[in-house]
Parts: sequence; structure tokens; C-alpha cells
Amino acid sequence: MQAAQYIGNKSFKIIEASPVAPADDEVRLNVGYVGICGTDMHIYHGVMDQRVNPPHTIGHEISGTIAELGKNVSGYSVGERVVVRPLDWCGDCPACDAGHTHVCQNLKFMGIDTPGAFQNSWTVKSRTLHKLPANVSLKQGALIEPLSVACHDISRSRLKAGEKAVVIGGGPIGQLVALVAKSVGAEVIISEPNESRRSFSNKFDIPTVNPIEQDLAEYVQDWTNGKGADVVFEVSGVQPAVDSMVQVAAVRGRICMVAIHAQKPQVDLFQFFWKELELLGARVYEHADFDMAIELVAAGKIDLEPFITSISDLENISNAFASMDNNPIGMKALVSCEEKLNG
Amino acid sequence: MQAAQYIGNKSFKIIEASPVAPADDEVRLNVGYVGICGTDMHIYHGVMDQRVNPPHTIGHEISGTIAELGKNVSGYSVGERVVVRPLDWCGDCPACDAGHTHVCQNLKFMGIDTPGAFQNSWTVKSRTLHKLPANVSLKQGALIEPLSVACHDISRSRLKAGEKAVVIGGGPIGQLVALVAKSVGAEVIISEPNESRRSFSNKFDIPTVNPIEQDLAEYVQDWTNGKGADVVFEVSGVQPAVDSMVQVAAVRGRICMVAIHAQKPQVDLFQFFWKELELLGARVYEHADFDMAIELVAAGKIDLEPFITSISDLENISNAFASMDNNPIGMKALVSCEEKLNG
Ligand SMILES: [Zn+2]
Ligand SMILES: [Zn+2]
Ligand SMILES: [Zn+2]
Ligand SMILES: [Zn+2]
Repeated sequence: MQAAQYIGNKSFKIIEASPVAPADDEVRLNVGYVGICGTDMHIYHGVMDQRVNPPHTIGHEISGTIAELGKNVSGYSVGERVVVRPLDWCGDCPACDAGHTHVCQNLKFMGIDTPGAFQNSWTVKSRTLHKLPANVSLKQGALIEPLSVACHDISRSRLKAGEKAVVIGGGPIGQLVALVAKSVGAEVIISEPNESRRSFSNKFDIPTVNPIEQDLAEYVQDWTNGKGADVVFEVSGVQPAVDSMVQVAAVRGRICMVAIHAQKPQVDLFQFFWKELELLGARVYEHADFDMAIELVAAGKIDLEPFITSISDLENISNAFASMDNNPIGMKALVSCEEKLNG
Repeated sequence: MQAAQYIGNKSFKIIEASPVAPADDEVRLNVGYVGICGTDMHIYHGVMDQRVNPPHTIGHEISGTIAELGKNVSGYSVGERVVVRPLDWCGDCPACDAGHTHVCQNLKFMGIDTPGAFQNSWTVKSRTLHKLPANVSLKQGALIEPLSVACHDISRSRLKAGEKAVVIGGGPIGQLVALVAKSVGAEVIISEPNESRRSFSNKFDIPTVNPIEQDLAEYVQDWTNGKGADVVFEVSGVQPAVDSMVQVAAVRGRICMVAIHAQKPQVDLFQFFWKELELLGARVYEHADFDMAIELVAAGKIDLEPFITSISDLENISNAFASMDNNPIGMKALVSCEEKLNG
């Protein structure tokens, strides 16, 4: 079988490898599709080399089919279609003890801290699996992971039907957050300077604001009749968004911090006091978020197909990464990792 | 009767005034004791002149006795001892509609935006009153307002028995927050650079850290066996505290923002994401917070007497303010506002 190894410096090498036999609690998957996410792009740019330690096989947004079962694995059978919740927690730290295994203090993120899915065959613990219903394709399955991020954000924010939400940042996660927000019955708008991303939102009937041309705070005041937004999702990671999130939030509004802020931005903490705002950090996902994501797609409430910008073969993984580099129009590039049989 | 008017520039003038007859929904109080709080000190320093518009009678931490009832007031009688929750809400904005009258979008804070209690007689809406039980003195009663601030902070933070809390800042509010934290069964420490404030905490068996001499984050790591603090109260308003609050909080820790940050500090939002932290703004108090504060004192769970640094007569209000100016040892100065009868 083949595996793609990230070797540093925006480069991948396709190598011949042997499938890893599953341990007692593991399952070996024939990989279907693997999505390229923002974190993968960071790795590609070399900024995480110390953590990933190349050469290393990355990839964590995956669908696949069960090929082989470890002897203690029950509840699954060969041939079943699954997705992987790519978290490896220790089970033994205060966070795990409190039931928050997704923010385990010793969490290993599969595909970053341990080998990932850009290969024909991937062997993982069975506790990471979620089954795909028959009407969810393997292609859509590769997007269950980012959709689960969005489900987790909605869950952390406690957004509910009838509330009004502002999503700051219209990249793939921001768009998915907006769709999940709609699916729970909230009204939602996206603030995004890039025109093609705004057009993408409009396909889903999600109103957009260009915060460069329009005063977002004023827009939200009007939209909410002076109340402000019940919930704000900060998905952009820049200082102006941090300013806006505080301005547009209603009294007692909740702000969900989805973005990764590499710098320490200035935050108007006075407004946190004055309006009794809440800031809620949200990282990855929990079991229930994957269940919700799969259910939303299976029930036809969210269609992930429009997010698929391109599908490349594993051998062309370098091109797939290059095509997503600095490409705000591209939502999600998939890599097809099914084994090509010779002859 | 006499009233003390703040006339700007760290000065008060004692004037002769007439008691204000209560409107239908109002009550006239014979004022007992009025505490001087941090906000009053800000006013004294002139930084809020635009808001208070001197000459203006300030003062909002008050106990008193009912002297006269408006004709629609029921449930109260002349001679009853009460405290005032000094909030005047509109009842008609989105925050009030949602039941959050204490953060009403048009909130008037009595004693700042409207006349206050540094006078012999104060006339207020009956909906602001809470009765004092027989075993709570008028002196302790004047501290129910700041104790209610602390009760509100505990309530916002959802602190519960068995949890570990760090209070950053050992001024009067920080000390009261720590006492309420103890009263709900939590373990609590105070971080405070000033030695006399640390000694004050130690009187209540509350351990303290001097964050100038000791690494607070390291101390909390040890104290919590590597978990971090379940709850952090930021009561200091300075940048190093904002750095610390993020460092000492556990995964999924809650940080309660009690301090007023006039500047916009830098906040490590990455840690909010990474540890799924919560930041909860807390302003003033709700009805239930006053109930809780009164109950804690009435039940003997919190003794407010040690907080009373001095008691001055109304005529000496200027000296009372001057004595609290830049005085970290002083916890609470009370002004006795009972009318002195001539002869
Ligand atoms: Zn991802
Ligand atoms: Zn763990
Ligand atoms: Zn006060
Ligand atoms: Zn109101």
C-alpha cells in the first residue's frame, strides 16, 4: 500500500508501506477520502515541524471502510463504513476524570501527534469510530470531522431556536457553524470581507456583511432592534474581529472562541463586566458532536457536497495542498485514498 | 435635615435640605450607615464628573429605617430596618424583557446617576428594599451591598462545594468574594501583593500568595495537583492579573471578571480555545444576591464587623473620604447618617 509522508518544506513523498495490523482494541480501515484542513495547511507551511517531526503521515478528516478487527473489538464488522474522531486521550488526567476527554491534558491529536490518514490503510482505536448511515457518502463522510467542530461550537454556545447569531469569518468552519446554527432554528449572519466566501454563504440563504464596507456593529444593532446578538462566533483570529465580537454581543450575550489566536489581542474586558458577556472557548469535539453531525447530514438538514472544491488522488497530494494555498475560494479539498490495485 | 453634596475636586459641602416626600411607589428612609466604596472614591477623584454632574449627593451602600410609606407600598411598615439594592431599571429594554434588570440597557445606578444616600433622609422606590433581620445591625447592613456583589460573582461563576478558587486581588470585594466562596464549601486562596491585605485574609484562615515574590501559577499547580483552579475571580484590574487568570485556570475553568478594566488588556485567547476556558462578566447584583448576602450574615456564616475600618459622622464625610484615599489597609469606612437632633 501507499502512504503520503509530509517531509517538510511544503513537500510530500509517496512511499510504499505495509498495513499496520490492528492491536486488540484497534481496527484497520481502508481509507476512503481525507480532507485537507487549516491545520494541515499550517503543517504544510512548516510552522508545526517541531510538533509533527517530519517525515510524518498527516491527515485527520477521514472516512473509510473497516478492513480488519482487533480481537477485543465488538459492535463493528468488516465492510462497515465509518468516520474517525481523531482524538487519543489518556483517560487518567483531571480533564479526563471530569469527563472532558476531548481536552485531555495529554491529548494526542491523531494525524498530527500520531500517524494520520493520508494513506491507503489506517489503523485506529475502535473507540474513535462513528458509523456512517447508508445515505451518507464516503465523500460527505470526510467532512463529518469539520462539521463536528461546528456542532461543538453550537453546543458550547448554547445557541437555541429563535436566537440571533453572528459568525465572524466565512471560511469552511465559519460556514459550517452558520449552517448548524440555522439547523437548530437560530437566525444567523456571516461577517466576511472576501466576496467569493460571501457568495458561498448566500447559496445557503445566509445573509452576509462585508465588515470593510459596512459597520458590523450598526448592522447588528438594526438587525436585532437594539438588542445585539445573542451569540457571536469568532472564527477569524484577527484583532478587528475581537473588537467586533464584544461590540455586537447583546447584554448577557455569549461569545464562542473558535479561532486560534497566535497573538494575544487586546480585549475590551470592561464590556465583559458591563454587559455581563460570556466568552466560551471551544476546541475540537466530543462524542455527541460527531453523532449530531452525522445525524444532520443523514437527515438531509445539511448538504456537505457544495463544500467539496476538488478531489485529488493520493499521488497528487502535493498539488491538492498547493491548490488550497492562499485560496479563499476553496472550501474543502479531498484526497481520495482508496488503494489502486495494479493491473 | 442635612445632605452631603459632592462638589467636585475631592470636596464635599454639607447643605440643609428638605426630606423628599415619597411618591406612591416610594418609601422615605431615615438613613443609618452608608459605606464608601471604590466607585465613590473614583467620583471623589473627579474622574466621573461628567456622569455625576456635581453638585450631587452620592452614596449607595446603605442601611436605614423606614420613616414614611407611599400610598401604594405594601409589605413594609414604618420603623422597619432595611437595606437598598440601588438599581433603577427601565423595565422596557431587551435586557429587562429577558429578566436581567440588573444589567438593564438604561440602568440608572442610584447614588451615581440619581441622588444617593449621604444624607439624613433618602427616598427610594420600594422595589429596591430588602428587610434586615433583627440580628443584623445597621452597621453590618451598610455592607450588605458589597457582600451582594460578592454573592453575584459566586453565582455567575457557578462555584460549588469542593471546588478550588483563586481570587486575584485582596481589596474589600476580593476579600468578600473569598468569604462567600468559603461559605459555599469551596477552597479558596487570595493573590495579593499588599502585606496588610494578606494579613486581613489570614484572620479568616484564607491562605494568601504574594504574586510579586512567588509564582502564582506554580503555587496553584501544586495546590491543585496539576489540575489548575476550577474558578478564578479577577478583582484587580491590571495586566499581570489578566495573564495570571488564564494561566492558573484548569481545563474548562471559569474566570469571573469582577474588575473594571479601563484599558483593554492583552488576553491569551489561544488558552481560552486550548483549555476551553469560560470568561464570565459579573456586574452589580440581582434580587437573589441580596437575599443570599443577608442570609449569610443573619446565619452567622459571614461576620462583616472586621471590615469596618472607621465610622465618621456625616459632617466629617470629607475626612472619611480622605482617610480612604490610597489606603490599602482600610477595608470599609462607614458614614453615620442618622439625623442629629438639635439641643
Ligand atoms: Zn481539521
Ligand atoms: Zn487525559
Ligand atoms: Zn459600591
Ligand atoms: Zn431596561
